[in-house]
Amino acid sequence: MKQVTEKFRFGIDIGGTGIKAGVVSTENQILGQAYVPTGAERSWQEVVPDIVHAAEEALKDAGEFMENCISVGIGCPGTIDAQTGTVVYSNNLNWQNVPLAQELHRTFTQPVFISNDANCAALGEVCAGAAKGFQNVFMLTLGTGVGSGIIINGRIFEGGGPGGAEFGHTLLVEDGELCTCGRRGCLESYASATALIRQAKRTAKQAPNSLLCTLCKGDLSRMDGRIPFQAARQGDEAGQRVIREYIKHLAAGIANAVNIFRPQAVLLSGGISKEGTYLTDPLTALVAEEVFGKKNSFLPQIRAAELGNTAGMIGAANLSQ
Amino acid sequence: MKQVTEKFRFGIDIGGTGIKAGVVSTENQILGQAYVPTGAERSWQEVVPDIVHAAEEALKDAGEFMENCISVGIGCPGTIDAQTGTVVYSNNLNWQNVPLAQELHRTFTQPVFISNDANCAALGEVCAGAAKGFQNVFMLTLGTGVGSGIIINGRIFEGGGPGGAEFGHTLLVEDGELCTCGRRGCLESYASATALIRQAKRTAKQAPNSLLCTLCKGDLSRMDGRIPFQAARQGDEAGQRVIREYIKHLAAGIANAVNIFRPQAVLLSGGISKEGTYLTDPLTALVAEEVFGKKNSFLPQIRAAELGNTAGMIGAANLSQ
Repeated sequence: MKQVTEKFRFGIDIGGTGIKAGVVSTENQILGQAYVPTGAERSWQEVVPDIVHAAEEALKDAGEFMENCISVGIGCPGTIDAQTGTVVYSNNLNWQNVPLAQELHRTFTQPVFISNDANCAALGEVCAGAAKGFQNVFMLTLGTGVGSGIIINGRIFEGGGPGGAEFGHTLLVEDGELCTCGRRGCLESYASATALIRQAKRTAKQAPNSLLCTLCKGDLSRMDGRIPFQAARQGDEAGQRVIREYIKHLAAGIANAVNIFRPQAVLLSGGISKEGTYLTDPLTALVAEEVFGKKNSFLPQIRAAELGNTAGMIGAANLSQ
Repeated sequence: MKQVTEKFRFGIDIGGTGIKAGVVSTENQILGQAYVPTGAERSWQEVVPDIVHAAEEALKDAGEFMENCISVGIGCPGTIDAQTGTVVYSNNLNWQNVPLAQELHRTFTQPVFISNDANCAALGEVCAGAAKGFQNVFMLTLGTGVGSGIIINGRIFEGGGPGGAEFGHTLLVEDGELCTCGRRGCLESYASATALIRQAKRTAKQAPNSLLCTLCKGDLSRMDGRIPFQAARQGDEAGQRVIREYIKHLAAGIANAVNIFRPQAVLLSGGISKEGTYLTDPLTALVAEEVFGKKNSFLPQIRAAELGNTAGMIGAANLSQ
């Protein structure tokens, strides 16, 4: 057990699979952490004690004491009402109108703050990652879906009410691909890893002799988000076509965000962001051509996020009123 | 001259054609006003004295005294840097990097605030018009272009830097109609009055026997934003097709805004907004079908703006740090 204790904040990242709890110092160092499975098949009444348990384990791991805790921050997938601390709807957790802050107040006397997990990840990157020192940041998490985290003047932008800040569900292609939200043509339905894989499969099917196809070893169900990039990097025409289209769509979505938010930085996270400059260089060029005012306007840096799976914890710990 | 004077704010609305100056009470009554032509063909050094002159005339009209002035607010078309009080670029005025606040401080000792004219119009409607009492409002001005004014927590959202909050330049149709900004498929290129007229002309050309065409009296250059609505209301198939498409595009743009901002109200201004519920009823239905969370989510009221050409003055008067 560490000898010196200090003031800290809990940052808890609830996912569909696991709950990560962190004891985060005021300098954004993770002093201790713990992981428990979410067990999302259970009712929320059963999950909440495990959130508390994860926090207690993280406290032990840090050798800290509850009386040094300043606040408890929670990042949660889905539509969150940050004002009331309610999870309005979470598909991943199968939760609806869960008064999470109120429930946690049975255990914690400290202020409890809740926000969407993508928001927390963006705030984490601003506090301690790729956007450190920036006040206005737009982050897209390119995963199963497309999550957006919008930071304005150093704080999470929640929108005027629950269901705002859902940038993944803005239009790119009228009457385009069906999105998980029921609308057609959303950014999510073109820029998620799921969308990339779908398009790569389609292209591979039409080009059975391509590297894109052969990298799947004759089984297109093996297609993942890395293979089209791998094929494209090796000069495969089919792979390059898939990546060119993917980057074009992502650039269009980022240009929309720039025209609305004019952030100092655009961050990309999720597995696809690991492609680094192979992704961000063409994005940077395309976005500069598309935005209002073009190259002469105020252009953000486009870069990969840095914190990986600790971003959510650190961001959650930094939630405030 | 009125006998009783009171504290007031100047609200000045600079347009491509005219400068409107208002003496606005703290209760948002216009106590006096004046209009001078902009003379935008002149240099900004020649225009600025006329802005001051318009304010002085409005002061006389109100029977007010300069010592009662709290602040000077300016609404200006184009890209504004609200922080430095600079007009970064204004196409309508042919201005570039004009230090307007600094220039006006030669005359006014009071704080001078500057924002985009569409932002000011939205703030005006929040302070004294169709969105009175609302804190989160999204307004589209459907005119030659599509201007957007975004109010978050009762204040104008300027974006993280100049060139933000340009919602008219977000994508609706990939590789679609060429927009004035140089991009293809922006909301502006489908939802402006200019776009409506363009589409109505195209449709009328293909349907020479339609009411849409005959209302132009054989001269399609007479087409305006009212004629397609007039034809549609009278059951003309060509007119209805034009309006249906127009409303579909506008609804898609509003749904995008709702998914980002979740405002309490969406306001429409400009000539087209005078179509009232013929426009807003189908928009309301379409937006509810398209937004994230659909009908069960938090849906804004969609309504026409109320203040008309005084919105800009009243909004400008309410600008603050």
